[in-house]
Amino acid sequence: SSLRSLISLYSLHAVPTLAAPMAIEAARLSPSLAAAAFLGRRSPPTAPLLRRLCLLLPRRSLLASASTSSSRASSGGDDRVVALSSSELRKRRGSTSSTPTPGEDDKLRSLRRLFARPDIAIDAYIVPSQDAHQSEFIAECFMRRAYLTGFTGSAGTAVVTKNNAAFWTDGRYFLQAEKELSHDWTLMRSGNHGVPTTIEWLNDVLPSGSRVGIDPFLFSSDAAEELKAAISDKNHELILIRDFNLVDEIWGESRPAPPNEPTRVHAIKYAGVDVASKLSFVRSQLDENGCDTVVISMLDEVAWLLNMRGSDVPHSPVFYSYLTVEMSTATLFVDSNKVSEEVLEHLKKAGVKLKSYEAILFDVERLAEKGAKLWLDSSSVNAAIVSVFRSGCDRYMRKRGKTERQIGKEASSDDPTTKKRGVQNMELNGLYKASPVTLAKSVKNESEIRGMKNSHLRDAAALAEFWCWIEEEVRNNVALTEVQVAENLLEFRRKQDGFIETSFDTISGYGANGAIIHYRPTPDSCSSVGSDNLFLLDSGAQYVDGTTDITRTVHFGEPSPRQKECFTRVLQGHIALDQAVFPERTPGFVLDVLARSSLWKIGLDYRHGTGHGVGAALNVHEGPQSISYRYGNLTALQKGMIVSNEPGYYEDNSFGIRIENLLLVKEVNLANSFGGISYLGFEKLTFVPIQRKLIDLPLLSPSEINWVNEYHEQVWEKVSPFLSGNSLNWLLVNTRPL
Amino acid sequence: SSLRSLISLYSLHAVPTLAAPMAIEAARLSPSLAAAAFLGRRSPPTAPLLRRLCLLLPRRSLLASASTSSSRASSGGDDRVVALSSSELRKRRGSTSSTPTPGEDDKLRSLRRLFARPDIAIDAYIVPSQDAHQSEFIAECFMRRAYLTGFTGSAGTAVVTKNNAAFWTDGRYFLQAEKELSHDWTLMRSGNHGVPTTIEWLNDVLPSGSRVGIDPFLFSSDAAEELKAAISDKNHELILIRDFNLVDEIWGESRPAPPNEPTRVHAIKYAGVDVASKLSFVRSQLDENGCDTVVISMLDEVAWLLNMRGSDVPHSPVFYSYLTVEMSTATLFVDSNKVSEEVLEHLKKAGVKLKSYEAILFDVERLAEKGAKLWLDSSSVNAAIVSVFRSGCDRYMRKRGKTERQIGKEASSDDPTTKKRGVQNMELNGLYKASPVTLAKSVKNESEIRGMKNSHLRDAAALAEFWCWIEEEVRNNVALTEVQVAENLLEFRRKQDGFIETSFDTISGYGANGAIIHYRPTPDSCSSVGSDNLFLLDSGAQYVDGTTDITRTVHFGEPSPRQKECFTRVLQGHIALDQAVFPERTPGFVLDVLARSSLWKIGLDYRHGTGHGVGAALNVHEGPQSISYRYGNLTALQKGMIVSNEPGYYEDNSFGIRIENLLLVKEVNLANSFGGISYLGFEKLTFVPIQRKLIDLPLLSPSEINWVNEYHEQVWEKVSPFLSGNSLNWLLVNTRPL
Repeated sequence: SSLRSLISLYSLHAVPTLAAPMAIEAARLSPSLAAAAFLGRRSPPTAPLLRRLCLLLPRRSLLASASTSSSRASSGGDDRVVALSSSELRKRRGSTSSTPTPGEDDKLRSLRRLFARPDIAIDAYIVPSQDAHQSEFIAECFMRRAYLTGFTGSAGTAVVTKNNAAFWTDGRYFLQAEKELSHDWTLMRSGNHGVPTTIEWLNDVLPSGSRVGIDPFLFSSDAAEELKAAISDKNHELILIRDFNLVDEIWGESRPAPPNEPTRVHAIKYAGVDVASKLSFVRSQLDENGCDTVVISMLDEVAWLLNMRGSDVPHSPVFYSYLTVEMSTATLFVDSNKVSEEVLEHLKKAGVKLKSYEAILFDVERLAEKGAKLWLDSSSVNAAIVSVFRSGCDRYMRKRGKTERQIGKEASSDDPTTKKRGVQNMELNGLYKASPVTLAKSVKNESEIRGMKNSHLRDAAALAEFWCWIEEEVRNNVALTEVQVAENLLEFRRKQDGFIETSFDTISGYGANGAIIHYRPTPDSCSSVGSDNLFLLDSGAQYVDGTTDITRTVHFGEPSPRQKECFTRVLQGHIALDQAVFPERTPGFVLDVLARSSLWKIGLDYRHGTGHGVGAALNVHEGPQSISYRYGNLTALQKGMIVSNEPGYYEDNSFGIRIENLLLVKEVNLANSFGGISYLGFEKLTFVPIQRKLIDLPLLSPSEINWVNEYHEQVWEKVSPFLSGNSLNWLLVNTRPL
Repeated sequence: SSLRSLISLYSLHAVPTLAAPMAIEAARLSPSLAAAAFLGRRSPPTAPLLRRLCLLLPRRSLLASASTSSSRASSGGDDRVVALSSSELRKRRGSTSSTPTPGEDDKLRSLRRLFARPDIAIDAYIVPSQDAHQSEFIAECFMRRAYLTGFTGSAGTAVVTKNNAAFWTDGRYFLQAEKELSHDWTLMRSGNHGVPTTIEWLNDVLPSGSRVGIDPFLFSSDAAEELKAAISDKNHELILIRDFNLVDEIWGESRPAPPNEPTRVHAIKYAGVDVASKLSFVRSQLDENGCDTVVISMLDEVAWLLNMRGSDVPHSPVFYSYLTVEMSTATLFVDSNKVSEEVLEHLKKAGVKLKSYEAILFDVERLAEKGAKLWLDSSSVNAAIVSVFRSGCDRYMRKRGKTERQIGKEASSDDPTTKKRGVQNMELNGLYKASPVTLAKSVKNESEIRGMKNSHLRDAAALAEFWCWIEEEVRNNVALTEVQVAENLLEFRRKQDGFIETSFDTISGYGANGAIIHYRPTPDSCSSVGSDNLFLLDSGAQYVDGTTDITRTVHFGEPSPRQKECFTRVLQGHIALDQAVFPERTPGFVLDVLARSSLWKIGLDYRHGTGHGVGAALNVHEGPQSISYRYGNLTALQKGMIVSNEPGYYEDNSFGIRIENLLLVKEVNLANSFGGISYLGFEKLTFVPIQRKLIDLPLLSPSEINWVNEYHEQVWEKVSPFLSGNSLNWLLVNTRPL
């Protein structure tokens, strides 16, 4: 897939099977986080988990704190020199600019001016990459970190103090950050030896008792709590500046308008289950958990629950909104001009009221003040909402003339329902646990599965036409850049019924670029695709009825024996996972080794997970399930879930290989059923040929050869009806038996 | 293997991949326990882990507490009826004896009389199966639970109150317990629906504020702490009765004498590393952890550290003792008449002093009183030692005129070494973490490996002779019971150089008995071994230079297609694990799926782990590593560790299959080394033919066929020099290529 979310989770770790140190560190930091990461009770969706890990990653470096302080000491207190230890970087900047004057950057100067305002009064401000919903893809107006720093990559955190400005990003972005950041910024290479974490750095550069400001909309409640606890070690105070974002203040008129795209109804033939039924499921969950209301803040969860789609952000058919579901009502908080008559009617039928996007805070406060019991997924719901809720609760209690402690006791003792059912994580009137929508959304119903299957066939047809076309172009020595290839692929997909957009930025990597797992070609810097090396293409699309994600690796000339060996090993891993049968309740990580062992046998491996969840006409990366060498996610694979199967191998500065299909988890009927339980397996959704010339045939077992032949037979049967002419012929040739 | 310790861990769980609920429950009970089970920081050795789980298992049933109380209510308060819900049992006892009068049993009457003694004054007494060292095999004089209850199985806990006597055991012992327990005992079928745990039961039957007595030597400190906390819910007090064991009091004269077997020096040619070097390693660990002294209480750890062996218990060459290692001295607490001149000289050379076994308490107290910092593995060190240590610490503090809190602070602040090194789990002067010996002992040195290899070849020769002999006997229709087979096997082993004893009770199971994973034949009840069904034989031996553990399954007649299919699937799992190559730092559970997936493909599975650690001329079951579907044990497999490879399949009331070899973890030299790390694999230690007629050849891939042929070729090459005549011919025939 676009492996980005997987990679965000994994790439900073040099050793594949190293979940343990991570988990141990998590355990040391916070019991709740450790539980989340380890016990899987939170059933963490990809994005919130990603956020949590982003928060954790810097802290892990605390382990290296001794060496950090010693190296800093030896550099004479010049933080810059320590952080920018790369000699290339110093050279690039020239030796004369070794100590740039802070504050020369207009944006930084403006930002720092705000620090002093009496209604702000802070000593530091943290600018993360997030929007208010923990989205993977965000609208341009929320790209505050990019605006402030000039760095356009997807991941990074900026921290500005009165005298310093530092920017943290991970290994995949070091080069880009070096190019894009001005001299006023200190680049912090996360994961590198001796590089402090944001928190270490804040605790180091700020005088004790400083005020650290954040925009609480941009931090999940969990993340803000972690931050608050960590900086309190140096008696710093975390200041939630809720009324305005400081970067927006300096951005001013030039800030893009918030997205204002129309929403649409996701037809019942694709959704399968109507909104009333979904709401009634959520209400049964509320009842079971002794709650009155749940606040849904993940955009794909709102879209799924309301059978609506939008286009406020690239790649994901979602729209900026919140949703509250109460026992008798439900309220969608969204800009009303995004809602057409049709959508309005659709919502009305399901008893969903409309309020403005901004009204969420007011409503949460109102609910808190009247003593409602709220279910908040604190890993995704932002700190602004949770803090408003908590202060509303305080007022409710004071109004009733009781201390918090009394109310707390009362809350559990006067509610036998809650008590009897053993509800955990209930703090006063707030229940902090995973959204009830996460798991429900991941288990696809028949209509969703049908839509996924249909859209995959059309996608496969587009890909067959594309591969047929590009082979011809390369044969004719037409110079095509990686970007042009991606653009042409888009054109082939655009011709398919129901096509909406790409489901992520296409990874089009020729030769050594294919070895950069997160590679995203840019028009000015990318390579031409030729016939001397491997070409890795990871792409996907949003259709009205489904979401696709596929990777194929091909060679337009003569692959080397080494390339064939590596490709075949990756293929063997892909086949082993595809063919797996396993008892119900098996977490995905148990299967990860099946995709790796063929590579391990020759001392190879890959530094990313093997599978992520995929939404049905929704986010291309979703949780809670995954297939990974990290064993923190205990979510069992369930019938109806969709996962990617994408082992790979990357030879630095040389080539990259990845073979990715999407798989549907299904029940398999076997002669036996030991333990009286179900056994599960996979059904392929993706039907695009795997390049036969890259297969080192003697390495394959007879059953692996059968797998390839049967797969190609299926590809031919399923996709040929969509093709004609050259493409049909291409498919015929490329699905011939080995 | 003798799967008993594995099975104790696993058999109560119906679903193979269900570690999560267990772990979650553990987390709810106790953070320290959860950490132990989950993070593997404790690197728990098998036996202590077993104890912890025994403690946990009953508690897990707390989840079913609602149903328990309702069923109890409906039975009119008669605990017996609830607990003995099995109709067979009632029938067996006859309908007239439905409410036996408590106290008719002499032993119970005597025990209860003691309750009232002023120096005892308790309302209940718990009698576990343990000795004072958490040993898997214990001496007869410590089998108090068996003496008291009449139940001779290996696992179970007796609890006696003034009016009740209840006995908990798990599924493998229900039938045996029904036969062996007198009518005065209520059998509690652990794991069955609605059966209360010991703690639930105690909290239910005792009036609030009761005094619950235990012998603190028989509980690990962790277990006692757990118990104390759990019964405090009903304000019961845990009374540590240290000066005598109540069962010993009633046992009186007829109690067997404590074992008094001579110890011996484990020759350096087998041990590989001398005692001085081992002690110096332990001292470096003391230094690193800011401790003055460590108390070693696991018998195999004492034996390993001092290069000594004994024979106080069956199956394990250990002797009852404790060891304290201080920076400049070391003291072995053992009955002096077990120590010969030679051993004394050996100890003297290493600077090890001798004290009486009983002196350990006095010495720990003395160390505490002088303020020494003690390292105590609270999962194995018993509660008597830890409580004496803690009261000694109290006196030390009072003497210094400070409060505990002050001392606590001082302990961390005035010791920069301890603080700087980030020592965890330091409580006042006690460091509670895994013994430094556990991991060191599991990684075998060259001499230990040589001894293991040599002893395995002699063991293989004995087994070849045995299999040759029994085939002939069965062919001649000689009636042999399962017990006679085991006895004859012992005779073949006895002829081998360096043979000492069996390393566990032989599991000799014909037909349906083979499906009882823990089967132990008894002379009066066992089957004859014939040629109509499968015969499973799991056995092992202690040699002077090594420890063996091997399982083979054979058919002396014509196996059914079903038996061949199942056997072949088990064999494929065995081969897949044997052939695994994996990066360093991979925990064993990652590999478990390799041994199962061939079975999963046809809907089969087995309810035990796949591999346990094995000592070198020591315990046949040792930690900290394991290969299991439980993912709680994060201990990485390391070069030099030994594990068993023993997948199986058990068809209830029909047959059992298991194929077990021991494997040595070794580094493999590969063409690549992705990530710059080592890749590990296995080297076989066990060389005994796998029955060819049980293999369904078409199911095997060419590489699996190669594996079998190459293995048999190795068996022939390595074992044939030890054989002659019929046995040699048997080996030749049975190692022919497929």
